[in-house]
Amino acid sequence: MADPRLPTTFISGSRAGDPLLTDGVLRPIDWTGDVDGCIVMIDQTLLPNERRIIECRDTRSVHDAIRRLAVRGAPAIGVAGAFGAILAAREAAIGDRTGFLQRFNAICDHLAAARPTGANLRWAVNRMKHRAASICTSSSPSAAADPCEIARALLNEARAIRDEDAAMCRAIGRFGEPLIPDGGGVMTYCNAGALATAEYGTALAPMYEAQSRGRRFTVFANETRPLLQGARLTAWELSRAGVDVVLICDNMAAQVMKERRVQLVITGADRIAANGDTANKIGTYGLAQLARAHDIPFYVAAPSSTFDLSIAAGDAIPIEQRDPGEIREPFGVSIAPKMVSCYCPAFDVTPAELIRGIITERGIIHPVTPARVAAMIGHQV
Amino acid sequence: MADPRLPTTFISGSRAGDPLLTDGVLRPIDWTGDVDGCIVMIDQTLLPNERRIIECRDTRSVHDAIRRLAVRGAPAIGVAGAFGAILAAREAAIGDRTGFLQRFNAICDHLAAARPTGANLRWAVNRMKHRAASICTSSSPSAAADPCEIARALLNEARAIRDEDAAMCRAIGRFGEPLIPDGGGVMTYCNAGALATAEYGTALAPMYEAQSRGRRFTVFANETRPLLQGARLTAWELSRAGVDVVLICDNMAAQVMKERRVQLVITGADRIAANGDTANKIGTYGLAQLARAHDIPFYVAAPSSTFDLSIAAGDAIPIEQRDPGEIREPFGVSIAPKMVSCYCPAFDVTPAELIRGIITERGIIHPVTPARVAAMIGHQV
Repeated sequence: MADPRLPTTFISGSRAGDPLLTDGVLRPIDWTGDVDGCIVMIDQTLLPNERRIIECRDTRSVHDAIRRLAVRGAPAIGVAGAFGAILAAREAAIGDRTGFLQRFNAICDHLAAARPTGANLRWAVNRMKHRAASICTSSSPSAAADPCEIARALLNEARAIRDEDAAMCRAIGRFGEPLIPDGGGVMTYCNAGALATAEYGTALAPMYEAQSRGRRFTVFANETRPLLQGARLTAWELSRAGVDVVLICDNMAAQVMKERRVQLVITGADRIAANGDTANKIGTYGLAQLARAHDIPFYVAAPSSTFDLSIAAGDAIPIEQRDPGEIREPFGVSIAPKMVSCYCPAFDVTPAELIRGIITERGIIHPVTPARVAAMIGHQV
Repeated sequence: MADPRLPTTFISGSRAGDPLLTDGVLRPIDWTGDVDGCIVMIDQTLLPNERRIIECRDTRSVHDAIRRLAVRGAPAIGVAGAFGAILAAREAAIGDRTGFLQRFNAICDHLAAARPTGANLRWAVNRMKHRAASICTSSSPSAAADPCEIARALLNEARAIRDEDAAMCRAIGRFGEPLIPDGGGVMTYCNAGALATAEYGTALAPMYEAQSRGRRFTVFANETRPLLQGARLTAWELSRAGVDVVLICDNMAAQVMKERRVQLVITGADRIAANGDTANKIGTYGLAQLARAHDIPFYVAAPSSTFDLSIAAGDAIPIEQRDPGEIREPFGVSIAPKMVSCYCPAFDVTPAELIRGIITERGIIHPVTPARVAAMIGHQV
């Protein structure tokens, strides 16, 4: 490991690779180099107009990237948190060894609070904390653990989280694929694709899987105001993959359903409570209501790391409020009186009763009941 | 009347007034001067960032202003069509007198086709055509009617249409006002306010009336993608009038309803069929479904001129499709891949069964059935 006391702006000798281009697979975030390396990520705020890769060499820049949505999507934020913990270890290594774990945990806790609603960030950071703690406690009582040893273990752990997320997405794709109607239409919301995960996606995974099997279908992508992840990210990544995609404004979803253009809705999730209530991007709840009104099955796709079994029901999930400027001045364009009040929740909660099934890497939870959730997800890491 | 053979770019000597400033009442469109005058209107595409008054001195510029939404809202477009018919008469006056009516009608028909969905444009233009025809047929058989005489009669007729629209809006306000919950919340959609009518508005009229009576309430305004009339126009005109308004993205409406922040939804209408099915801005139908899911009464406010009793049910109302660029590049900002397909209906149809009542200048149609519609609106002008 490089000297942990080097400033966090230290730049590794190896040129950061473009995660977009690695063997043709779209990966929004990765770690480059050894323990002295850094996080590389696509700045998703600039897509699709610009593909810029940014590097995070300290936890402050990771926190900032999560906060301003350069990386977004609960699973991808989880991966950011996992890799961020390596940077936390580097920062915590500055100082006496006996205080390392305390400093490390404090930095991790700050990182985990970058956004409040998604489950994966806390889940991943906690897993990294447990890993660090297990090494520290297993060290001989006479000598505190070597920061180099800890950092290397954390890098392995973070890579495992990344690889497990990718594998979970592939499994979600296989379980969800039979739902995709041949010759029909599917609706999705926000971006729960490759850009929201380590790779491949959650809600989009069944579509990619169906596409790879030669099935023909059309995806209706809701643009997802205020930050337009559906227009900027989902339309872009589906087009890039050769999937037939039609972009609509969020307020057109009901009409598309009424015209029977879609036979299925699949969205991602940011946190799922023990009873199956699902927090996801604001607008998901309304979409689920509209799907019910049109008798169209509404599915959620998420890995087990998005479940939070410590929360019994959705009303206990904290909902992030965002800056009204995201509504009033989208992308720098003033579209409303400057001083007008806005209400800007970033998420809503879809009650389990509106969800036909939850597609996980272990199978589909259906019907969505506390017992079925417990049976499928009962043992969280 | 000025020489009708003057070019259509002829500019009247009188400086066009700012319709915004006339005795404090917000009027988006008016006629300035005598029969040789012109239409003045607020260019609503520029609000709220810029208040620019444009003048229309020929029917081509009126057609263009309607088409590009410089004037919008079914009743206001109707007023534009009425005043536009005066310009049509001026243009038709160039040529032999015996062919006047035929030329006039042809120009009017082109004007009436500027946008297909709203009822008021055709209604107003037809009324102007009937007025011109009645003068021509009442002229002595030996001499065709004097274009000056026709233009003056048309100016009077158009001013009557404008004044009747304003009066109808005031009456809608009085009938709808008791519905506004004191200390509660109302949701509206798009802009059905003063800017959408001769003055005062339809959906917003009950709110203005309640405000004038000292009632306190909050209006939740949906921004209304793609052209954001809710954010740009409704938020602006309600703020200007001192009404407490909160702007939301369209996909937040369900959450606002779930949180019981509103006890009532009122929207405008572009065309209402004989059974009460209502065409209005895209997204209205979804909002009505969400209101039903939350057991919140959903009302439509519209003058009798918005009804089209020649159409039995909503599925026969033509739905305008707009340019996908309105979704992909809102206000010049690219937010999606350039080549991505879009589906861009400008309107949808809310079935009568989802509408608790239709607030007209003659009273509230409730329940919304063909018989009740016929009883209230049976005699259209």
